[in-house]
Amino acid sequence: MHNQQQRIIASAAQREAAQAARLKIRAGFDRSTAGLAAGMTQVNMISVAKDWAYDFLLYAQRNPQSCPILDVLEQQHYHSILAADADIRTDFPRYRVWQHGEMVDEITDATAIYTAHPELVTFLIGCSFSFETALQDAGIPIRHIEDQHNVPMYLSNIACRPAGRISGNMVVSMRPIAAERISEAVQITAKMPSVHGAPIHIGHPESLGITAIDRPDFGDASRIAADEIPVFWACGVTPQAAIMQSKIPFAISHAPGHMLITDIPDRAWMN
Amino acid sequence: MHNQQQRIIASAAQREAAQAARLKIRAGFDRSTAGLAAGMTQVNMISVAKDWAYDFLLYAQRNPQSCPILDVLEQQHYHSILAADADIRTDFPRYRVWQHGEMVDEITDATAIYTAHPELVTFLIGCSFSFETALQDAGIPIRHIEDQHNVPMYLSNIACRPAGRISGNMVVSMRPIAAERISEAVQITAKMPSVHGAPIHIGHPESLGITAIDRPDFGDASRIAADEIPVFWACGVTPQAAIMQSKIPFAISHAPGHMLITDIPDRAWMN
Repeated sequence: MHNQQQRIIASAAQREAAQAARLKIRAGFDRSTAGLAAGMTQVNMISVAKDWAYDFLLYAQRNPQSCPILDVLEQQHYHSILAADADIRTDFPRYRVWQHGEMVDEITDATAIYTAHPELVTFLIGCSFSFETALQDAGIPIRHIEDQHNVPMYLSNIACRPAGRISGNMVVSMRPIAAERISEAVQITAKMPSVHGAPIHIGHPESLGITAIDRPDFGDASRIAADEIPVFWACGVTPQAAIMQSKIPFAISHAPGHMLITDIPDRAWMN
Repeated sequence: MHNQQQRIIASAAQREAAQAARLKIRAGFDRSTAGLAAGMTQVNMISVAKDWAYDFLLYAQRNPQSCPILDVLEQQHYHSILAADADIRTDFPRYRVWQHGEMVDEITDATAIYTAHPELVTFLIGCSFSFETALQDAGIPIRHIEDQHNVPMYLSNIACRPAGRISGNMVVSMRPIAAERISEAVQITAKMPSVHGAPIHIGHPESLGITAIDRPDFGDASRIAADEIPVFWACGVTPQAAIMQSKIPFAISHAPGHMLITDIPDRAWMN
């Protein structure tokens, strides 16, 4: 997908697992999708009015590591090439509704609100969950999957490049990695730039402006063992920070960690 | 640049060569820039009115192999992060002016026309010249550099994914490669997706709708030796095909092969 000529197709079993996960979510599953339908690409989402779409698309273009766009759905389109039978109005477990930078509601079905807002354009954005399969395949455990909680995410002090009316800081996800495996983790994730790529920082949370590693801004805290170092990757929740900071009049996003599961295997994003 | 964390800096000699080439162009050099300031990134260009910028940016997002965007300059901005002292109004050797899909003029200095059109937003797009250094470093000769002419480019029958009001076919560049070196050429260029990446086709021009390989639609024909196969890459002239097919009211582009030379080394785009 990344460079368009590698058409990596999911197995029938993988597609069935993805579809089953979407049906489960559509039926009411309301938790983080971390670890669900292992090996299948999960995506972040943000919908903004057409009037804001150029600024957002340019913001994403200028900040590809935190906002790698995998698909754009035009107004009143709710189906993505990434998952033929998915409906973006129902197939995220949980949505956030934003007005002027404030979260005004959290909902589990967004159908009514998309009907009321036909002006929305939707962006689907790569998620670092996609490289977790590759890390696990290399024998590097993922703490938040082991412990069955959402990944910890933090609002960093790294300013993204602004675009038009949109600006904001980078949100980062954190995984504790055993010190002796960090070099491998960098090399593996560097091969997947469409899903956030290599870490943006290793080992010094304070220099990212993170003062309490045990109190993430989004998601749940992860245990950090004595032989581990916190490793930080750019995160697809970054657009939500931009919504807040830029006071975009109206937007819908997914709730952090509550993703859409697509029919594309994670390994399709491997360079 | 591609994944933002690899900051590869040009040597002082390379920056001087790039600057000297720009000054030469600004002073009137009016030929293809193929082979100029070897090792430094050259870029394609298109300027469209702000009203068309979202459609174009989405077109590029949906067709990254032919339209990899390296920088976007907002209205009345003429300087790029890719080359601090460059001016996009004067530093391409030759420009094309488009009205309603027809080329109405070719000029060597676009300052007056940018002044008359303050509504223009400018996109700088990766160029396959950037992987030629890597091919040459591997001992794979580049025919159009050897023979000192412009690269041959063809309008293919491959439809790009449309976006809003913009549609068009992919333009491809062709390099004859010795049959025994093609596998290496694919592997080398696949590592550079921001500058068109791997070939989109090898060996059968007819299936791309190309009936006369010796009469390219843009640039100059290349000799093809008996032991060589024509290899095709997506080309940054693709937006010009979209301008024509979509009858965009007004646009400025570079003339094919007449590129802006930046301060970024080609190897900065290597994954």
